Amino acid sequence: MSNQWSKKQEAWSARFNEPMSELVKRYTASVFFDKRLAEFDIQGSLAHATMLAEAGVIADTDLQAIQTGMNQILGEIKAGEFEWQLDLEDVHLNIERRLTQLVGDAGKRLHTGRSRNDQVATDIRLFLRHETDRIQDLLKNLIKALVTVAERNHATVMPGFTHLQVAQPVTFGHHLMAYAEMFERDLERMQDCRKRINRLPLGAAALAGTTFPINRNRTAELLEFDAPTRNSLDSVSDRDFAIEFCSASSILMMHVSRLSEELIIWMSQRYAFIDLPDRFCTGSSIMPQKKNPDVPELARGKTGRVFGHLMGLLTLMKGQPLAYNKDNQEDKEPLFDTVDTVVDTLTIFAEMVEGIQVKAENMRAATLEGYATATDLADALVKRGMPFRDAHEAVARAVRYCDVQQCGLEQLTVAQLQDALKLAELGYSDELVNDELCAVLTLEGSLQARNHIGGTNPEQVKAAAAETRKRLGL
Amino acid sequence: MSNQWSKKQEAWSARFNEPMSELVKRYTASVFFDKRLAEFDIQGSLAHATMLAEAGVIADTDLQAIQTGMNQILGEIKAGEFEWQLDLEDVHLNIERRLTQLVGDAGKRLHTGRSRNDQVATDIRLFLRHETDRIQDLLKNLIKALVTVAERNHATVMPGFTHLQVAQPVTFGHHLMAYAEMFERDLERMQDCRKRINRLPLGAAALAGTTFPINRNRTAELLEFDAPTRNSLDSVSDRDFAIEFCSASSILMMHVSRLSEELIIWMSQRYAFIDLPDRFCTGSSIMPQKKNPDVPELARGKTGRVFGHLMGLLTLMKGQPLAYNKDNQEDKEPLFDTVDTVVDTLTIFAEMVEGIQVKAENMRAATLEGYATATDLADALVKRGMPFRDAHEAVARAVRYCDVQQCGLEQLTVAQLQDALKLAELGYSDELVNDELCAVLTLEGSLQARNHIGGTNPEQVKAAAAETRKRLGL
Amino acid sequence: MSNQWSKKQEAWSARFNEPMSELVKRYTASVFFDKRLAEFDIQGSLAHATMLAEAGVIADTDLQAIQTGMNQILGEIKAGEFEWQLDLEDVHLNIERRLTQLVGDAGKRLHTGRSRNDQVATDIRLFLRHETDRIQDLLKNLIKALVTVAERNHATVMPGFTHLQVAQPVTFGHHLMAYAEMFERDLERMQDCRKRINRLPLGAAALAGTTFPINRNRTAELLEFDAPTRNSLDSVSDRDFAIEFCSASSILMMHVSRLSEELIIWMSQRYAFIDLPDRFCTGSSIMPQKKNPDVPELARGKTGRVFGHLMGLLTLMKGQPLAYNKDNQEDKEPLFDTVDTVVDTLTIFAEMVEGIQVKAENMRAATLEGYATATDLADALVKRGMPFRDAHEAVARAVRYCDVQQCGLEQLTVAQLQDALKLAELGYSDELVNDELCAVLTLEGSLQARNHIGGTNPEQVKAAAAETRKRLGL
Amino acid sequence: MSNQWSKKQEAWSARFNEPMSELVKRYTASVFFDKRLAEFDIQGSLAHATMLAEAGVIADTDLQAIQTGMNQILGEIKAGEFEWQLDLEDVHLNIERRLTQLVGDAGKRLHTGRSRNDQVATDIRLFLRHETDRIQDLLKNLIKALVTVAERNHATVMPGFTHLQVAQPVTFGHHLMAYAEMFERDLERMQDCRKRINRLPLGAAALAGTTFPINRNRTAELLEFDAPTRNSLDSVSDRDFAIEFCSASSILMMHVSRLSEELIIWMSQRYAFIDLPDRFCTGSSIMPQKKNPDVPELARGKTGRVFGHLMGLLTLMKGQPLAYNKDNQEDKEPLFDTVDTVVDTLTIFAEMVEGIQVKAENMRAATLEGYATATDLADALVKRGMPFRDAHEAVARAVRYCDVQQCGLEQLTVAQLQDALKLAELGYSDELVNDELCAVLTLEGSLQARNHIGGTNPEQVKAAAAETRKRLGL
Repeated sequence: MSNQWSKKQEAWSARFNEPMSELVKRYTASVFFDKRLAEFDIQGSLAHATMLAEAGVIADTDLQAIQTGMNQILGEIKAGEFEWQLDLEDVHLNIERRLTQLVGDAGKRLHTGRSRNDQVATDIRLFLRHETDRIQDLLKNLIKALVTVAERNHATVMPGFTHLQVAQPVTFGHHLMAYAEMFERDLERMQDCRKRINRLPLGAAALAGTTFPINRNRTAELLEFDAPTRNSLDSVSDRDFAIEFCSASSILMMHVSRLSEELIIWMSQRYAFIDLPDRFCTGSSIMPQKKNPDVPELARGKTGRVFGHLMGLLTLMKGQPLAYNKDNQEDKEPLFDTVDTVVDTLTIFAEMVEGIQVKAENMRAATLEGYATATDLADALVKRGMPFRDAHEAVARAVRYCDVQQCGLEQLTVAQLQDALKLAELGYSDELVNDELCAVLTLEGSLQARNHIGGTNPEQVKAAAAETRKRLGL
Repeated sequence: MSNQWSKKQEAWSARFNEPMSELVKRYTASVFFDKRLAEFDIQGSLAHATMLAEAGVIADTDLQAIQTGMNQILGEIKAGEFEWQLDLEDVHLNIERRLTQLVGDAGKRLHTGRSRNDQVATDIRLFLRHETDRIQDLLKNLIKALVTVAERNHATVMPGFTHLQVAQPVTFGHHLMAYAEMFERDLERMQDCRKRINRLPLGAAALAGTTFPINRNRTAELLEFDAPTRNSLDSVSDRDFAIEFCSASSILMMHVSRLSEELIIWMSQRYAFIDLPDRFCTGSSIMPQKKNPDVPELARGKTGRVFGHLMGLLTLMKGQPLAYNKDNQEDKEPLFDTVDTVVDTLTIFAEMVEGIQVKAENMRAATLEGYATATDLADALVKRGMPFRDAHEAVARAVRYCDVQQCGLEQLTVAQLQDALKLAELGYSDELVNDELCAVLTLEGSLQARNHIGGTNPEQVKAAAAETRKRLGL
Repeated sequence: MSNQWSKKQEAWSARFNEPMSELVKRYTASVFFDKRLAEFDIQGSLAHATMLAEAGVIADTDLQAIQTGMNQILGEIKAGEFEWQLDLEDVHLNIERRLTQLVGDAGKRLHTGRSRNDQVATDIRLFLRHETDRIQDLLKNLIKALVTVAERNHATVMPGFTHLQVAQPVTFGHHLMAYAEMFERDLERMQDCRKRINRLPLGAAALAGTTFPINRNRTAELLEFDAPTRNSLDSVSDRDFAIEFCSASSILMMHVSRLSEELIIWMSQRYAFIDLPDRFCTGSSIMPQKKNPDVPELARGKTGRVFGHLMGLLTLMKGQPLAYNKDNQEDKEPLFDTVDTVVDTLTIFAEMVEGIQVKAENMRAATLEGYATATDLADALVKRGMPFRDAHEAVARAVRYCDVQQCGLEQLTVAQLQDALKLAELGYSDELVNDELCAVLTLEGSLQARNHIGGTNPEQVKAAAAETRKRLGL
Repeated sequence: MSNQWSKKQEAWSARFNEPMSELVKRYTASVFFDKRLAEFDIQGSLAHATMLAEAGVIADTDLQAIQTGMNQILGEIKAGEFEWQLDLEDVHLNIERRLTQLVGDAGKRLHTGRSRNDQVATDIRLFLRHETDRIQDLLKNLIKALVTVAERNHATVMPGFTHLQVAQPVTFGHHLMAYAEMFERDLERMQDCRKRINRLPLGAAALAGTTFPINRNRTAELLEFDAPTRNSLDSVSDRDFAIEFCSASSILMMHVSRLSEELIIWMSQRYAFIDLPDRFCTGSSIMPQKKNPDVPELARGKTGRVFGHLMGLLTLMKGQPLAYNKDNQEDKEPLFDTVDTVVDTLTIFAEMVEGIQVKAENMRAATLEGYATATDLADALVKRGMPFRDAHEAVARAVRYCDVQQCGLEQLTVAQLQDALKLAELGYSDELVNDELCAVLTLEGSLQARNHIGGTNPEQVKAAAAETRKRLGL
């Protein structure tokens, strides 16, 4: 019995008249990035071998030899002793060659009824399922951190902004819960994406299926996939799940970039709403006084890289004819880097969010700057019978009045407020303006009043936090 | 009672010292694209008014006036008689102003307890829910067309390609069913996306909720949303659903581009696998003989525009602080254009796919060109006891033999095949090669043999088509 | 002499057995967006006709008829009286059909020696050359506005930020000149791009050139192109210039987005560094006090749309085989929208920048907050003989000292500064700290000291502004 | 004299109360990718030190020590003996720390008058200038390969395609020269980009310039930059050049993807226009007969990654306030990967293009399939006095006639051609159809006739090739 492996470089070279150029070998080899899939490759091979043995395609002794060999290989890989060879192109052939060295013909029989096309598709899905589960856990950690800080600050008043202009009072807890909502949607998207990851392509072989009596349902069961895929051509060429994952990750990173933007603004000296612990910041090699929010900045920057990977994968697949093309090898690096970026970012953010130091007095001072309760005044006039549009008009005049007087609305006396609103001009009585009306202009009154699902009333914020904990089991 | 609308340009101008510049007006106005939302804007307003009346915030007479007015406005819009004004910025103020003209103070009361921020978020969601449902129907139509042609061609042999090189025989039906799978995944993604579209932001008001005793569950019920959103700041700034929709659409268009690429290649004279009906093609203004597959080419090209919109929306949201910023106005045009592109493309593709004219003889001839059954030969040797890697090696030699002889594997005699395989060199007996072995080299034999879930065996293809019909109710 | 135009829908339909489906007609027609090229189409046709007449391919009487007809058509178009027909697909056939109606056979002869493939390529280049020139003028206007405000504020102190943390004092003029630099690079890129736009594809015909004795150099001369293109296949399929333009525009819009981000932050109440004139702002339909920086926000948002168009065009061209494919029709809408976005944005920004109202006292106050002159102190210690790294260390300690004391570095007495720096611990004498050293801690001293090309010294800023005016002829 | 380096982890840590978290250290460190800049970092430091010594800021002995130290460090790096430390964050601090170990205080003085912000900007520009020059050389190599094969095949007839349908005869040489044109434009863009790379940011220091009497013109001269940059804030935050480079690279890769697409189609069995040498192809692990064009497929796929990097960098810079933010650290990996992708791809393509094996007989056979000379027939009728539109109509009928007869136009007798054209119906005499007319229908006649700049006439192709060699000095 010969060992062809020793006589040739490639698993397929008998048909060729000249060896692959060294340049091409380096250009086309994937082993130096796809070796990351080794554990999943072995997991998939073991399930395939088990199914083949059960189906009588290989002998039980072959299965045992494969199991023994793979066990040793896994050990070698974990110990960093496995010798990865560029000449063997990819993770699959590196492992298979080593297996054949270790267990002989049984190793050669492993590739029966499959191809690298369905094998690599299976490996990536196993990998991505694993990572998607991990990311779901990390998202929960981050949400938990947000909820925790939100609970602490459910009544901490801060300016709610639109257009980065002071709009209405909100609480810091309410603001953080907005991010909890975003990351919970990311969690949902990861769950939805997982459904489409968790289907078994193995058995599609090169593109058309195989002539061996395989049992794809059994392999799916062994690998805990929901079901085998339904079309072999699609199975080897489908990378939707990778794109969908990168899309969900892009939205996730977009959320991170929004939170980062706010942390950076809040930490700038003019705002000084928060501080971040020193351990999350860096200084400057030239400016001795600097303490920079490097982590949120870098996270904001890393958004670009994930968007780029999404774009790269979409471009990759655009216009590809069926079934497998070598282009697809380019799916891995962007996917790996997306996973790493998301995992690292979520890990560090959960810890950093918990460490946010709130400067409540600065938040409060800022809320008093921009006529944040003007809408409350308009609402109060509406409740006294004015149509909203007229009330809006009157209050806008009062704001101009205060602009000239350089004071806040809440600082006006009843007489001044009457003077400022000029209700008579709009056909209403000045008597609508009284002490009770002035009372709505306090920050606390404003917060209390927004008392409905989703509103910034502190009790609503507490309730929202509690429900989030309950819903996600935090 | 005054009518401030007549004295000023904008709904908010009382606070301002100079009118908006004409240039700025044009730059910031959205009415010429967002008027497309009119119907949904009215729908949302009616539900809001109903809730307000039920909650006692406005009078029943106000509600009736609003209903009457909106009814008339809807009629004017549908009749093309509504006068859209740039000066009124957007669809919301155009409609509200007209309502106030028609019904007076009741119209002014409509805006109680809401803001344009939550109003527009509601409008887009209503619009996108509607379009997502339509796209699901269109996807089913296209899948139905694919299944129909697949059933007709469940046994039509064609070359299965990998790397655009002949790989193994498949059937045309099997090939088309690969696309049915892709579009069914698109359907799933649209369904998942719909869940996140179908939540009601109304009641978030500008950003913090409102002081009026609104009932958001009731508004959600009236508009058939699954639930109100849970955080007001998030509600007015969230555009995840638009990005997710564009992402699902990008993957969908990527599938369209793959199918298009194949249609174009199949229709080129060298392939001549199919023809498209004249009504889907165009000619050339200079070359009188031309018949060009314009529809698939254009669809392939339109992929770029949808990818671009996705990137545009992701960029748009990157780094935006909470809550609403004017940047968000830029969400609409890409979203509208994505919807239109997807809707038009799916509509035309369903019709075109049904019209594909199959040239079965050319497909068959092409399948005979590239040693498509070489894998079958290797598999057969494995079944005679050789490890797969050795069988692969032997068959590769046979292919080189045929290359020199310029013949197909199926044309070799038993003696020639023995000569070609050189089994002895690998340590096996030449007697493995006999008539039975030669028999596996036929196209039909190859197809029949791939008889498992997802394989190209014609009965499997028929079954897959039938199950798809059943699953989707086609 | 027959008129085939009246008997058929399309310019090419004699070869076809059935008319184009209405759906396909709408899907593939471009006339409703490419009619924007009409003026350039006519310009190109007139040059082509002139060349044909000079080459003896058409008669002088034909040329005259074409000129007369085109003149009338141009008038009709400008007057809005031209009847654009969907059935005639595109701008080219609409104009040619009208020409044939007006002048008969001469009109039919116009298409001799050209095809729509080279015609449209010519039209887009003429259009884009025109717009690129316009954009260069607009860029100069914006740079002029920046330089003007920079000159006014060449000595207005503000905090220079890194990481949005106060870093060192700069002047507002210096800050604005950074944007002048960016937009000048955009100008350079537009000029470079113009070189590659300004080559004549006409004469490539459908793809291979023409059998008529055309004189491409003459046509190039008539249309003021630098030269004819050098390869016919490339000529009809090249869209590099459109991508390059969108890339230059993306970088330009990225600059706009950075300036916008700063304007928005500077205008938020906490910063209050500037105000924008009311005519560039809008209010809120619900919050009467709001004045929002809509223009910069919208411009920041529009960045996404231009990035998206760039990605769309790159995707469009990816993997297209030579020569012309219908995909290319998708080049126009993104290009038009990019042009419009850039033109509108530059126009409005030049006006808005000039209107910036500077709140110098707030800028100054902010500069005093963040130990902005700490680097000056370190530099001064270096000049007294300490290696920079040691000086950095000492000053960092002083900053911690001030943090505890809640004061600025410039407020320390000599004794306090000695106490704070703890030079002895680093092996230096406390006597390095004296009145002269304390003097470097003033804002004005810091500005003055950065006196080299590119530094923030006010005289350097003035000089940079003057040189920019001179270089660009502003 | 103390050595603070030994007592702390970071160059800036004196101001901080707690050490950086390990997680943050890994998240923010760049040394494991930016060490690639080491050689350029040293080059920049040496020029900076020379200038400082000339300006009297540091002593000549310091300069000598720095030179000696850097020389040793460069040796250590090249020998792989340099110990890179994560704790030292980046390439700059790793090298500076080692320098200080080697030469003491002189090493600490090196950082005088600069910051890492301007240092890293200088390093990247030096790196990218180097790579851009290399890429220009590689582009010339590829163009040379194209020109060489084009010259060999200047008269090799092949079908020119539009819409992947046979359009008109061209030569293979003409087709390849289209790509030579594309890559020459890429060369131009790289040259234009280089102008904007080659400006010196050093001296901008952290953001505002420095208080030391530096001579930026001198440093620029030493590093062979065209000039110093003109604004310090812009200098440290500008990454335009990186984006512009990625944009030029994206267009370049788009060209590669188009060529790849064609190579793949041409090599598929149905086309069989070319073969690629075995050394550029790979086989299949399951299908023994396969020979796959892996290199062009992979290159087509790699297009996506470069597009993605462009998108990533644009996103990165969007909306960043001045001056330096940590986001910018994310510029390096996409830039490095773009450089590597472009360099590897150009290298391998130059070699592969030269190895293309042309199957001229198949190209010729394909040209005869699609009525490729129909336009010649129409042109000939025009020369006999018919307006082009009428001639187009007549020839279209003839094509339908041949479709029915299943023959080529060139196979028709004069009588048949008269019958097919039906000139009388259009009002012309059948006598226009004669032997001379039939003669224009040959492939060679068609090629010869397109005899103008850019046309496919073989002599024009040869001339174009010769001019390209001359223009680029190949």
